[in-house]
Amino acid sequence: MRIEELDTPALIVDLEGLEDNLDRYQRYFDQHGIGLRPHIKTHKCVAIAHMQMRRGAIGITCQKLGEAEIMAAGGIDGDILIPFNIIGRQKLERLTALARRTRLTVAADSRYTIDGLSTAAVARDVEVGVVIELDQGRTGVPDAETAVELGKAVDSAPGLALRGVMIMPAPPTARPFLREVLDAFDRAGLPHPTVSGGSTPSAFTAHEIPELTEFRAGEYPVGGVKHLDIGTHTVAQCAGRVLATVVSRPNSDRAVVDAGSKSLSAATASLNGQTVMGYVVEYPQAILGGASEEHGQIDLSNCDRKPEIGERVQIILAHPCPCFNEHDEIYALRNGQVEAIWSVDARGAIR
Amino acid sequence: MRIEELDTPALIVDLEGLEDNLDRYQRYFDQHGIGLRPHIKTHKCVAIAHMQMRRGAIGITCQKLGEAEIMAAGGIDGDILIPFNIIGRQKLERLTALARRTRLTVAADSRYTIDGLSTAAVARDVEVGVVIELDQGRTGVPDAETAVELGKAVDSAPGLALRGVMIMPAPPTARPFLREVLDAFDRAGLPHPTVSGGSTPSAFTAHEIPELTEFRAGEYPVGGVKHLDIGTHTVAQCAGRVLATVVSRPNSDRAVVDAGSKSLSAATASLNGQTVMGYVVEYPQAILGGASEEHGQIDLSNCDRKPEIGERVQIILAHPCPCFNEHDEIYALRNGQVEAIWSVDARGAIR
Repeated sequence: MRIEELDTPALIVDLEGLEDNLDRYQRYFDQHGIGLRPHIKTHKCVAIAHMQMRRGAIGITCQKLGEAEIMAAGGIDGDILIPFNIIGRQKLERLTALARRTRLTVAADSRYTIDGLSTAAVARDVEVGVVIELDQGRTGVPDAETAVELGKAVDSAPGLALRGVMIMPAPPTARPFLREVLDAFDRAGLPHPTVSGGSTPSAFTAHEIPELTEFRAGEYPVGGVKHLDIGTHTVAQCAGRVLATVVSRPNSDRAVVDAGSKSLSAATASLNGQTVMGYVVEYPQAILGGASEEHGQIDLSNCDRKPEIGERVQIILAHPCPCFNEHDEIYALRNGQVEAIWSVDARGAIR
Repeated sequence: MRIEELDTPALIVDLEGLEDNLDRYQRYFDQHGIGLRPHIKTHKCVAIAHMQMRRGAIGITCQKLGEAEIMAAGGIDGDILIPFNIIGRQKLERLTALARRTRLTVAADSRYTIDGLSTAAVARDVEVGVVIELDQGRTGVPDAETAVELGKAVDSAPGLALRGVMIMPAPPTARPFLREVLDAFDRAGLPHPTVSGGSTPSAFTAHEIPELTEFRAGEYPVGGVKHLDIGTHTVAQCAGRVLATVVSRPNSDRAVVDAGSKSLSAATASLNGQTVMGYVVEYPQAILGGASEEHGQIDLSNCDRKPEIGERVQIILAHPCPCFNEHDEIYALRNGQVEAIWSVDARGAIR
C-alpha cells in the first residue's frame, strides 16, 4: 500500500527519519557513557520501544502504570522506570503485581507516596525501587534537605530499594542543585546508583552533567515543531506527521484541512516566535495557526504557491505526545510505501 | 459503585446536571419553534445521543463520517447532518453506503465537493442531501453570489438534493449575511427548507435569527469553562468533569494532579480573563494553568484552604470535545453513585 492510498487524516511515521533519530541519539549517549532510557509516553508503541531496546537502551520510562503494564506485556519487561508518584489502593495493587514481572523503579517526592509504596510492597512481598524526584517546576522535592529526608525514609522502608534521584528537565543549569543533593546523599551515606535526567530538548547537553547515569528522552524518535525550532531535528528528522487533505479554500488566503484537534491534538508550539498547531511540510510559508476539532486552519497569505482542494499535505506535530494519543494506529512508511501498521498500544492508558 | 471507588483520572458526568441541560436547551428550542439537532462530536456517546433524541431532537449532527456511522449503528439513524466537505474515494463510498440506511445531509462549499458527491451518489443510486455552508471564519462560501452558484450546482446535480444552507457559528450578528443569501436563493428559485445555525455559546440567541429552522449545539449537555465564563452554565450544570487525585505538593503554593493533557486534552480556555486548562470545583480560587501529559499544575497561591496529597478533586473541562476524545468510557453518576458506565463510542473516529 502506498501513502496515496491512505485515507486522511492519518498518523504516519517516516522510517528513514525514525531510524536516523534512534541511531543518532543512541550513538550520542553511548559515546558519553550515559544510559539511554527512552520515554515511551511519546509514541506509546511497543514496536518502536523494541527498536529502541535493540539499539542499546538500558530500559524504558513510562509515565503511567498503565503504560508500563502494556509495555511489559509487549515484551519490554527488563527495566521500567515510572517517574511518577503512584498513589491509591488500586494502582498500588497493580504496581506490586507488575513488580513481580519486571525490575520496577518509581519516583517519590513525599512521605505519603513512600508510605503507600512500602505498605503495598510488603503486602505482596516484592521489592520496588524508588528514586527521589528533584523539583524543576513539575513535581519533586524543593531542596537537598528534603531529598535526604525522603531518601532516608525510602532506605529504611521495608519493601523499597533506594535507587537514587531523578530530575526533569535536565539542562546544564540543573547541575548545581543535582550536585548539592548528591553531596548530601553521600554525607548521609545514601546510595544513588541511578542519577536520571530527562527531556529531549536537553538531551545533547547531557554530557555537561557528568553525574547523570541515565537519560530519559521521549520525543527524539519523531521530533516535532519544537525540535525543528531549536534545531535538534531537520524537517526530514521530524518523522511523525499527520497526513491531511485540503477540504476547503474559503478564500485565496485560507486553506482548511481535515485534521483538527481530534487528530493533531489541541497542543500548540512556538515556531520562529509564532504559535502554531503544526508545520506544513509542502508549504513552509503556510501557518497552521488554529484548529477546531475537525478543521485545521491554514493561513496562506505568505505563500506564492497555494494548495488546491483535494490536495494532501503532511503536518509536523506541534507536540508529538498528545498527538499520538489521538490515534489508534501508526502507518510506518519507507519511501512512501507502507512497511508496517503499528498499534498505538498505550493510547488512552491514563491510569 | 461510589465515586470514591473510581480510580483516577476518570471522566465523569453528573446525571442531574446533564439532564437539566438536556431539558432546558430542548425547552428553549421547543418554545421558539426551532429544531434542535445536537452535535454529538462533544460527547461522542450513543447513550447520550439517545437521551437527546428522546427529548425531541430532530436528528443529530456529526462532524465526521466515522461518527455518523457509529451513531447510525447505535440506533441514531433517523436524520444525520454532517456539516463537512466529504472528499475522496474512500469516504464517498462510505458516505453513499450510509445514505442507504439513514437520511443524510452534508455540507459543501466548493464545486469540487459537489462533483464528488454527485458522482458517488449516482454510482450507488442514492440521494444525498446538501446544504451550502456560509463562511464565518471556518469553512464555507464568502458571499451570496457564490452560495447561489453552488446552490444551483447542487440543485441540478444528479443524486443530490439541495436542502438549504448552514452557518457556524450563528450569533445574531450573522443574520444579515444569512438573510442576504436566503433572499438570493429565493430570487434564484432555490429551495432552502433547512436553515441551520450552530454553536452552544450562541444557542440562547437563536430566536433572534427567525430564519433558522434548526440549530446545532454540541457542548450544552456537559458545559465547560467557556460556558461557566459566559454564564450559560452554573458549576452544577458543567456536568462533564475529570476526577483527579493530588499526587504532589512540591511547595505550599502548588499542587500537582494526575490529570494532564492525556486526560484533560491540551485545550485551554479563558476564565475571568485568565487562560486555564480547567476549573477545580472544590478550590475555586485555584488556577489550573498548565499541564504536561500526565501532570496538571495547580497554582494555590490565592487559596486559603489547600488540598493534601491523596485528595481528589473534580475538574471542569477547558473544552469538553477534545477531552471526551481522550477517554474510552464515561462514568455517569447520580449523587455520587455510578448509575451507568458509557462508552465514548465515537472516540478516535477521525475519518
